[in-house]
Amino acid sequence: MIIQQSFKIQTPGRGMIEVTKEVAEIVKQSEISIGICNVFLHHTSASIVICENDDITVQHDLERFFGHLISDGHMLFEHVAEGPDDMSAHVRSIMTQSSLSIPITQKKLDLGRWQGIYLWEHRLKAHDRKITVTLQGE
Amino acid sequence: MIIQQSFKIQTPGRGMIEVTKEVAEIVKQSEISIGICNVFLHHTSASIVICENDDITVQHDLERFFGHLISDGHMLFEHVAEGPDDMSAHVRSIMTQSSLSIPITQKKLDLGRWQGIYLWEHRLKAHDRKITVTLQGE
Amino acid sequence: MIIQQSFKIQTPGRGMIEVTKEVAEIVKQSEISIGICNVFLHHTSASIVICENDDITVQHDLERFFGHLISDGHMLFEHVAEGPDDMSAHVRSIMTQSSLSIPITQKKLDLGRWQGIYLWEHRLKAHDRKITVTLQGE
Repeated sequence: MIIQQSFKIQTPGRGMIEVTKEVAEIVKQSEISIGICNVFLHHTSASIVICENDDITVQHDLERFFGHLISDGHMLFEHVAEGPDDMSAHVRSIMTQSSLSIPITQKKLDLGRWQGIYLWEHRLKAHDRKITVTLQGE
Repeated sequence: MIIQQSFKIQTPGRGMIEVTKEVAEIVKQSEISIGICNVFLHHTSASIVICENDDITVQHDLERFFGHLISDGHMLFEHVAEGPDDMSAHVRSIMTQSSLSIPITQKKLDLGRWQGIYLWEHRLKAHDRKITVTLQGE
Repeated sequence: MIIQQSFKIQTPGRGMIEVTKEVAEIVKQSEISIGICNVFLHHTSASIVICENDDITVQHDLERFFGHLISDGHMLFEHVAEGPDDMSAHVRSIMTQSSLSIPITQKKLDLGRWQGIYLWEHRLKAHDRKITVTLQGE
């Protein structure tokens, strides 16, 4: 059995937005007992990541650390047409993920106790982002 | 056909542990000829990665380089409740992988000659880690 | 339905080579309407990544930034038997991807408007690289 569903998220700008509930709900509705859930992001200046879901300071620390490691407007960047956060967003995207494959077990998205799925917006301004969830199983 | 199996690994602390044999054995037992093998790690302070499998100095260099790039107790980190290696572990996790999808070809896990699957423990102390292997194919 | 096909790319040395057309053609030929396309690279010193596909300076900036972040012949590297670009290639590989799972929707590889699939060669010299594409769907 294959189920595919897309949804959009409007981000307010740089930062993480949890989408675990949206994905888990698609899994629940599908009634698939066992299989794989793929979560795909159709963009190269944002990421889809699994992050610790309990302490918000983890997200803040990730944001600060990536901002430090891949500084906006880095002197090595030529691709600056859309602003100093354009190229750093592409680097952040390629260093993290735009596709996640997660097991479905006993009709549930089988994440660990401290794992959540997050859309990570890397651009400073608000953006519309599209995510496609594809379930395969039985 | 879908096969799913979980197993636990007790890590002795920071470093890599090869799990290629464990995963390849599940593929072999399944008798699936062609398909995809997904290896999923249920944690956010360890990774599941494909690493060079021949020269142990590659693992040592990766450990040293990541330790240098993402120093434990970095001055930007607020999330330090569990110690200086807590937040660096989350950064290492998000910069690598917690899910791998590998082809199954002619009843075998179709890794390259120099590729191995490794659980990479990022915390300094010993931890119990859970891995779920999901096979889809025919 | 499962379709699997491998192909080889000869790289001229460090840099990105787009393989979107090759992968999209396999999807088209398969006549799968809905499912997942996995693209797997059988090497640990190159990557398979989703990168911005419109402005070539993005690739140049990624190359320069990774060269700066993970310098060839870094003083921390012991694994230098094959030259100063050997260990940096393994670090680049583990910080990016060697496996991508992309949705198939309405008989097409469902990439975003600005997403392309690229083989990223990290070694300085020319190499033969093997990619396996596995499609699952109906």
